[in-house]
Amino acid sequence: MNYDKDTIYAILDEARICTVSYVKDGEPRAIPTGYVRIGDYIYIHGSVKSHFFRQIEKSDTVCITTVILDGFVLAKSDFNHSFNYRSVVLFGIPEAVTSRVKKKELLYWFTERYIPGRWEKTRKPTSHELNATAVIKFQIVDASAKIRDGMPNDLEKDKNWPVWSGIVPLKMQIMEPIPDENNTPGVDTPEYLQNL
Amino acid sequence: MNYDKDTIYAILDEARICTVSYVKDGEPRAIPTGYVRIGDYIYIHGSVKSHFFRQIEKSDTVCITTVILDGFVLAKSDFNHSFNYRSVVLFGIPEAVTSRVKKKELLYWFTERYIPGRWEKTRKPTSHELNATAVIKFQIVDASAKIRDGMPNDLEKDKNWPVWSGIVPLKMQIMEPIPDENNTPGVDTPEYLQNL
Repeated sequence: MNYDKDTIYAILDEARICTVSYVKDGEPRAIPTGYVRIGDYIYIHGSVKSHFFRQIEKSDTVCITTVILDGFVLAKSDFNHSFNYRSVVLFGIPEAVTSRVKKKELLYWFTERYIPGRWEKTRKPTSHELNATAVIKFQIVDASAKIRDGMPNDLEKDKNWPVWSGIVPLKMQIMEPIPDENNTPGVDTPEYLQNL
Repeated sequence: MNYDKDTIYAILDEARICTVSYVKDGEPRAIPTGYVRIGDYIYIHGSVKSHFFRQIEKSDTVCITTVILDGFVLAKSDFNHSFNYRSVVLFGIPEAVTSRVKKKELLYWFTERYIPGRWEKTRKPTSHELNATAVIKFQIVDASAKIRDGMPNDLEKDKNWPVWSGIVPLKMQIMEPIPDENNTPGVDTPEYLQNL
């Protein structure tokens, strides 16, 4: 376990989806969602109509997890096969964000996190749209990271076993953007997408 | 929401990591982990020393989620930005797998799921290693999938807004395998890694 804040926050900022787990009527519930971390808070947003959001808002605590899978670790023995990964588990104290001004500011940060540079030219949210957007803020408490990297940990006696060992790296790749049919003539693929 | 079993199982088989959420002392707990689906069951494995595993085994129900992120959806308006994704949320009834024969069989399926063809030449697990491996089986109940794909859903009035719109696909890529220093001379990168 790693409790270093910089390490934990770097994983939270690189991963793109988290799972928010909460308790309803004594039973576990969970939902995968996008998020953004700002300071010691995590924010998620969705529809005000979402029953998940209403239940999460009412929870005392949620558990938020995320994981970046970095590769398969292929050892000489089946037992020592593993993954390379970086994961975070944290607890969060939920609080609804209701101010439209604050919600708009957070929408900026959501956009900026995933597609830096995107916000400038898009059509800004109306009051109606901001009212339809639920935002929940979670104070981060008790966060920890787990990281495995590098080569397999084979037993000394297995090291000459005649099978290939090593790692198979995995990487989330951004592919060529695909324009939709509503693109106005003269609007090229923006530079911020070429640099993603 | 999609309740089609084939759709749900296809997502479970393609995704590589799930999050298992459970309740301890009335509070939510969650852990990301590898898994394999066989029939109407999900299996996870870990160390018998893991307190997570002991807590999960004792739970009445867990909630298991997974998500494959397929892309960013860039609309004309900030409000209609989204992700393309395929997610599953299901509930599972846990049961410990204690038989060594059964555990060894499941280790085969774990390996085969991630690296098909790998099992044949690796050093097989000893009784000691099988005793050190905890395996939990979850009966799948109440599973559902959520899928978003395709282009942004812009409002008619936004369609001429002069900003690029479309999708930025994301794909988990398998990179070139990296051999470790224990590779026996004459052992080449196996064909099953070249075909991954």
